[in-house]
Amino acid sequence: VENERQLLSTAHAVKKAGATILRGGAFKPRTSPYEFQGLGQKGLKLLAKARRETGLAIITELLSEQHVELVAEYADIIQIGARNAQNFQLLIAAARTGKPILLKRGPSMRIEEWLLAGEYVLSNNNANLMFCERGIRTFETYTRNTLDLSAIPILKAESHCPMIIDPSQGAGRADLVASLCKGAVAMGADGLLVEVHPKPSEAWSDGVQQLTLEGFAQLMEELKPFIAAAGRE
Amino acid sequence: VENERQLLSTAHAVKKAGATILRGGAFKPRTSPYEFQGLGQKGLKLLAKARRETGLAIITELLSEQHVELVAEYADIIQIGARNAQNFQLLIAAARTGKPILLKRGPSMRIEEWLLAGEYVLSNNNANLMFCERGIRTFETYTRNTLDLSAIPILKAESHCPMIIDPSQGAGRADLVASLCKGAVAMGADGLLVEVHPKPSEAWSDGVQQLTLEGFAQLMEELKPFIAAAGRE
Amino acid sequence: VENERQLLSTAHAVKKAGATILRGGAFKPRTSPYEFQGLGQKGLKLLAKARRETGLAIITELLSEQHVELVAEYADIIQIGARNAQNFQLLIAAARTGKPILLKRGPSMRIEEWLLAGEYVLSNNNANLMFCERGIRTFETYTRNTLDLSAIPILKAESHCPMIIDPSQGAGRADLVASLCKGAVAMGADGLLVEVHPKPSEAWSDGVQQLTLEGFAQLMEELKPFIAAAGRE
Amino acid sequence: VENERQLLSTAHAVKKAGATILRGGAFKPRTSPYEFQGLGQKGLKLLAKARRETGLAIITELLSEQHVELVAEYADIIQIGARNAQNFQLLIAAARTGKPILLKRGPSMRIEEWLLAGEYVLSNNNANLMFCERGIRTFETYTRNTLDLSAIPILKAESHCPMIIDPSQGAGRADLVASLCKGAVAMGADGLLVEVHPKPSEAWSDGVQQLTLEGFAQLMEELKPFIAAAGRE
Repeated sequence: VENERQLLSTAHAVKKAGATILRGGAFKPRTSPYEFQGLGQKGLKLLAKARRETGLAIITELLSEQHVELVAEYADIIQIGARNAQNFQLLIAAARTGKPILLKRGPSMRIEEWLLAGEYVLSNNNANLMFCERGIRTFETYTRNTLDLSAIPILKAESHCPMIIDPSQGAGRADLVASLCKGAVAMGADGLLVEVHPKPSEAWSDGVQQLTLEGFAQLMEELKPFIAAAGRE
Repeated sequence: VENERQLLSTAHAVKKAGATILRGGAFKPRTSPYEFQGLGQKGLKLLAKARRETGLAIITELLSEQHVELVAEYADIIQIGARNAQNFQLLIAAARTGKPILLKRGPSMRIEEWLLAGEYVLSNNNANLMFCERGIRTFETYTRNTLDLSAIPILKAESHCPMIIDPSQGAGRADLVASLCKGAVAMGADGLLVEVHPKPSEAWSDGVQQLTLEGFAQLMEELKPFIAAAGRE
Repeated sequence: VENERQLLSTAHAVKKAGATILRGGAFKPRTSPYEFQGLGQKGLKLLAKARRETGLAIITELLSEQHVELVAEYADIIQIGARNAQNFQLLIAAARTGKPILLKRGPSMRIEEWLLAGEYVLSNNNANLMFCERGIRTFETYTRNTLDLSAIPILKAESHCPMIIDPSQGAGRADLVASLCKGAVAMGADGLLVEVHPKPSEAWSDGVQQLTLEGFAQLMEELKPFIAAAGRE
Repeated sequence: VENERQLLSTAHAVKKAGATILRGGAFKPRTSPYEFQGLGQKGLKLLAKARRETGLAIITELLSEQHVELVAEYADIIQIGARNAQNFQLLIAAARTGKPILLKRGPSMRIEEWLLAGEYVLSNNNANLMFCERGIRTFETYTRNTLDLSAIPILKAESHCPMIIDPSQGAGRADLVASLCKGAVAMGADGLLVEVHPKPSEAWSDGVQQLTLEGFAQLMEELKPFIAAAGRE
C-alpha cells in the first residue's frame, strides 16, 4: 500500500482477473530501520476502501502486539510474516482475535517447527489457520529464497489447514512467478499469493518480484488448464 | 541393478507403463565403503539384456575415469552423479565418448556453478547435455533433500539443454514422488527420473524412496492431464 | 530458572568460579506450546534475589511488548532472542527502556541483516548494544547449530559493539563447549554465555548442552592461558 | 604455482617464517573450464625444486585417476580437494599409493559423511589420513564459506587422525585469516593451511584470500602465545 491510486487500480485489476482476496501491507517489517515502514493506519483505511469498492477480502500483516485491535478492526485475515513466525506472543494475540490467520514459514524453519508454531494458533481456540510457504533460505543466489514446493503435499498430509504458496517472495524475480504458480497448483496448493503493482519499476519495495496488472491477468489465464488438471475450480 | 529377475521385471513393467529410458546403477557411489557398491560389469550386461528385451534406452552412472570405455560400450546415456558433478576430469572424459550426458546437480551447487560444470561437457565438443535436478542440501529434515523446482524455468532460460527432474532422490520418500512429478511437469520439465522396484522394502539401497511397479503405472496415468495442460506429449 | 534452590546454587557457584553476569530465563520462547514456558514474574523475582545474594548482574529475555516494563524493572541487561531477532517492534520497545540490549543472531540471519537489526536499537537512542552469536542453521546434524566464530572478527571490524559467544546453544552439546570457548576467546570475543545447571540430566530444557557447576569452574580455569594470550583480563 | 620466481620466493619466505610443508597446486579444479587450470607436470617439477632448495615437504592436489602415478612421484602428501571429497574411486587410488592423504571436507558434507569418506582411505590399508576443514556452504555471503571450527573437537573425539584447518578457503578474505588461525590453534588444530602470495593482487586465482609474505611472517609471530596456551609446540 503506497497510495490510494496505486492500491485501488491494483485492486480493481486483480478483482477483474479473478482474484478473491487482496493482500496489502500497512505495517511493513523491513530489514533496515531506514527503509519505508508502511503507512500504518492510513494504509489500513485505504485497504478498507478497496474492499468496499471491489468486494475483495483483505489480508494484512500484524507485526506488533500493540496493533492487534487496530489490525483486527480492518483485516479479514491476519498475516503473520516470516520474521515473526516464531514470535509466539504475537501468534497467541492474533489467534485470540478469532480472525483467520495466515502463518508464513520462517526462512529457516523446519516443517515440524512450522506445524508447532501453528499449534500456538490452534491451541488458542482458533482453527482458521492457513500455512503459507514463501521460500527457505539456502546457499542459492539466483533466487532470493528457495521455494520448497515439497511443503504442499507434506502439509496436506500432516495438517487439515489450507496451504498457500507465495512465489513472489520465494523466487524474488517476476520472471519465475508464472512457472512456480503452475507447479504449486499442480501439486495441490489451495491458494497463491502473488505480488502485483501497476508499475513494478516504481514500487517502493521489492519491485523486481512484482507482476504488472497485465502480467497478472495473463497468469490467471495460463493457470486455468492446470487448475482443471488438478481437479479444482 | 540387483539381479536379472528384479531388473527385467522392472524394465518390462515400466516399458508397459510408458517409460522410454531405463536408469540402472552398475557402479554405485556409496557414502560408506561398507555398503553395496553395485555389480560392475555384470550389472552392465544385465542392463544390455533389458534393452534387448524391451527396447528401452539405458542410462547408467560413470564414476571412474578407469571405466569410461566399459560404460560407454553399454550405455546409451552416461550419468554423472551428484557427488561427481564437479569432478571435472570425469566430465571431460565422459564428454569425449560422444554419448549424451546426464549431469546431476551437486547437493550444494549454485545454478551458476552447475551451468559452468556443463561447460566442461559442451566445450569438449559434446552438445548432448541434459541437466538433472535431484534436490539440494538444506536444513530441512522431513525430506532427504530440498527439490529445487525453480531450477526448471531458470535452466530453460539460461540453457538450450533438456531439464530432467529426479523426485525420488529429491524427496527421499515415495509418498511425495507423485506430487513432485506433477509440479515438475507443470513447470516445464522435459523428463522425470523415478526410482521403481518390484519390492521396495527389499531393495538393497534407498528402498524408502522407490515406487512399486503398480505405483509407477498409476503415476503415469495421473500425470496425463498435467502433461496435456503443459502442452506436451 | 526452575526454582529457588536450583537458581541460587547455580548463581553462587558461577560467581565463585569468576562469572560476572547471570542469564536466566523467566519468559521462555519454546518451539511447541506444550513445553515449559518459564515461570514469568516469579522467575524474575528469583533472579532479583540471586542478584542481591551474589552481586551478579542479571540478563533475561524479553519476548513480548506486553512485558517491557516488567522485564525492565528486574533486568540489568535485556536479551532479544534468536527467534525475535527481526521482531523490530520488540527491538524498538526494548531499546527505549534505555537498558543495555543483548541481541542474539537469528538462525538464518546474514551478518549484514544482523547489523541492520542492531540499527533498530542504535537509532532509538540506545548505544548499549551487544551482539551474541549463537550458531546458524546449516545442514550439519552432529551439532544443533553451526557456531560461526568468523562473526567475531567481522563484528569487531564493522561495529563498535561488544561481541558475546554462546557455545551452548551453538553446539547443543556440553562436550564441545570448552573447546568453543577457547576458540572464541582466542578470536577476540568480549564475553561468553555458557549454560550451567546443578544437574543437567534433570534440567527442564536443553539438558544435553549444559555444564555442571564443576564443569563450569574447570572451564574458567582452562580459559586463563587463552585469555592471557589474547591480551585480555 | 604460477612460475618459478613466484613459487621459490614464497617457499623461502614461509620456510623462514616457520612453515614445514608447502602446498602448491599443479592441477587445479576450477569451477569454469575457461579459468586457469594449473601448470600440470611443469608445476610438479617446480614444487620438487622448491623442496630441494628449502627442505619443505610438498602437498599437492590429485584430481584425476589418470595422474595418480605422476602426482605420487612428486608429492610427499596427496591432497583430495573439496569437490572430490566423495569421488570414492579417486580416494581409493590415492590411498593405494601409500602416501599420506589430506582429505578436505566437501562443502556440503556432514561430518559423519566425511568420516565415512575417510574410511575409503583407511580401509585400503592407508592409515596416514589427515582431515582438513575448509568451510561449509551456508547462506552467509560476507564470507566465502562458513568455517566450522566445531569440527576440530568433533574429529578429535571421533577419529585418531590429525585435523588441519584452512582459513583462507574458509573465509575467502585475507583480513579474517589471522583471527581464524588463533581460534583453530586454541581449539586443538594440528595444522594450518594458509594461502600466501608475494603479490596477492596479481595472483592468478583467489587473490583476495591470500596473505603477503610479510603478513604470513607476522601471523606466525602472533600465533606463538596461542600455541603455548594450547600446550603445543
